[in-house]
Amino acid sequence: MTTNRFWQLDAHPKGDDFASALSFREEALQPLAEGQVRIAAQWLSMDAGTRMWMSPRTDGYQPPLPLGAKMSGLVIGRVVETRDPAFPEGTLVRGFGQWADYSVVTPAEAGLMALDESLPDLREHFGALGMNGWTALLGVRDTARIQPGQWIAVSAAAGATGSLAVQVARNLGANVVGIAGGPAKCAYLTEELGADIAIDYKADDIAARLAAEVPGGLNAYFDNVGGPILDAILPNMALFGCIAVCGLVAAYDADKPLPGPARYDQVLMKRLRIEGFFVPDHFHRAEEFIPPLRQWHDEGRLVSRFDETPGLENTLAAYAKMLGGGAIGKVLVKVA
Amino acid sequence: MTTNRFWQLDAHPKGDDFASALSFREEALQPLAEGQVRIAAQWLSMDAGTRMWMSPRTDGYQPPLPLGAKMSGLVIGRVVETRDPAFPEGTLVRGFGQWADYSVVTPAEAGLMALDESLPDLREHFGALGMNGWTALLGVRDTARIQPGQWIAVSAAAGATGSLAVQVARNLGANVVGIAGGPAKCAYLTEELGADIAIDYKADDIAARLAAEVPGGLNAYFDNVGGPILDAILPNMALFGCIAVCGLVAAYDADKPLPGPARYDQVLMKRLRIEGFFVPDHFHRAEEFIPPLRQWHDEGRLVSRFDETPGLENTLAAYAKMLGGGAIGKVLVKVA
Repeated sequence: MTTNRFWQLDAHPKGDDFASALSFREEALQPLAEGQVRIAAQWLSMDAGTRMWMSPRTDGYQPPLPLGAKMSGLVIGRVVETRDPAFPEGTLVRGFGQWADYSVVTPAEAGLMALDESLPDLREHFGALGMNGWTALLGVRDTARIQPGQWIAVSAAAGATGSLAVQVARNLGANVVGIAGGPAKCAYLTEELGADIAIDYKADDIAARLAAEVPGGLNAYFDNVGGPILDAILPNMALFGCIAVCGLVAAYDADKPLPGPARYDQVLMKRLRIEGFFVPDHFHRAEEFIPPLRQWHDEGRLVSRFDETPGLENTLAAYAKMLGGGAIGKVLVKVA
Repeated sequence: MTTNRFWQLDAHPKGDDFASALSFREEALQPLAEGQVRIAAQWLSMDAGTRMWMSPRTDGYQPPLPLGAKMSGLVIGRVVETRDPAFPEGTLVRGFGQWADYSVVTPAEAGLMALDESLPDLREHFGALGMNGWTALLGVRDTARIQPGQWIAVSAAAGATGSLAVQVARNLGANVVGIAGGPAKCAYLTEELGADIAIDYKADDIAARLAAEVPGGLNAYFDNVGGPILDAILPNMALFGCIAVCGLVAAYDADKPLPGPARYDQVLMKRLRIEGFFVPDHFHRAEEFIPPLRQWHDEGRLVSRFDETPGLENTLAAYAKMLGGGAIGKVLVKVA
């Protein structure tokens, strides 16, 4: 342990050309400052939200990452060196670190948390019990406030957060429409996650299928993507429905601004509530999030499928697969 | 009293060409059916929402008016003939009637209400104590949930509903930005209604003025119009702000669909809540609406300015003036 390999953000990526914008580098390990800890990464989490940090936009919910900085992201790993007595050497932790063999973090800034090592699959600390699980619960239960017997649609439903949102909605007694791309994902939605209806946005007319199969309209929509799928959803909302806005993947790239929802008028016509939410606003509410997620997980009713890429050097391939919809479930890089 | 003059909807208007779509006619009075009442109109209320009933769109919050029907709208008048004992002859009433000398209505369908004749200006039954007042209170208090010291912007702020929304917000202790077209309206906002800031959307750069004068951002926006003003507002919202959607004038004409809000991404970035509301959903809550409106009105803190056009035959001119922004305050037709 003398050198550290890491990914550096050299430029703002154009579209999905990440190879020109990030470089894979190596440096000697630097001494820790007071209060810092060094984490040896086991897994990196690939998350769509990080796409925004790569862009120069300053009006997002996170400031842009400075050019020349190590790319940041969620890490699970073990503390190998520490100058914070709250995180002794050997502690398994999760937090915002770097795309690197070793992350150096200040625990409070990184949202660092010691992890329960008794979990059968530790990767679920990224999934059902991680930010994806919290996001699913915050969106379905607290924002959409779905009730038993109501209908909810989830976009990017075979993705890390979407697949958990589908299960949370089912666990709360709702009827679920999952929207994903391609037959394999759609089969996953209905056969493994318990969605009532799967819609393949690449092959199906979303608006027509909703009109035919959910004639009373959707009480809620868990939106991960915005764009044309939102336009198909809006006229199919029920009166007083809620659109819980989790993500707008298409809006993260500053070079390609997302056009506004063409059917925004439905907000008034249907008296809808459209509400954005963001898990870090709710970090202080751990006791409202962890127990239900853990219980469903232990009952086998909230589980992730993992798509794991071995090798830190292959991070960009994993990242592109996650953003491009090439994976089912939670995309990870296995670092060590 | 043997004949009735009325406006008939012959065709769906193109843009603001109402003269080609509505005709002024006369007919002999027909006998009432059981349960109906006949109302001699004193005033007609000109309301932007009625523009949608004239269009063929079936996905609005009201079904379209059938072609060949009498144009409908809010009326204040006196019962001159009755087959409903709850509304005896001579009662002063307000409800959804027709653009006519005499409206024939079934009270429950028309939302008919007997009026307090002690009010110094009976026209306030359309204004501060009418649907405009209810709408202002529902939007500012119940939807935006504005708090003392917070900032709220109101569009179409010199209009019938907007001018009351400005006053309701002031009465609840908020700081108010009124947005209207032209110096006369802007002077009305600050000098008579108590708005802290007036922005002339025809002359000013709305986004730049908000950024400079409300640097902490808007906690709420009472939206009557949608469109480009909404685009200027969105990047100037504060975190966790609310957009209370009262109207989308530009979306009422089916031939000119409103483009979606270009800065819809702000819903996520700022964790905004956008919520549509519609007074008829809340007709059962009269006791939550009437007392505060009446109290503010009696204290002189909730008053309307009226723009009155004499003569039923001049209704289209009044209507065009209301929709086109040519009036300050509440636009009425004085029928008799």
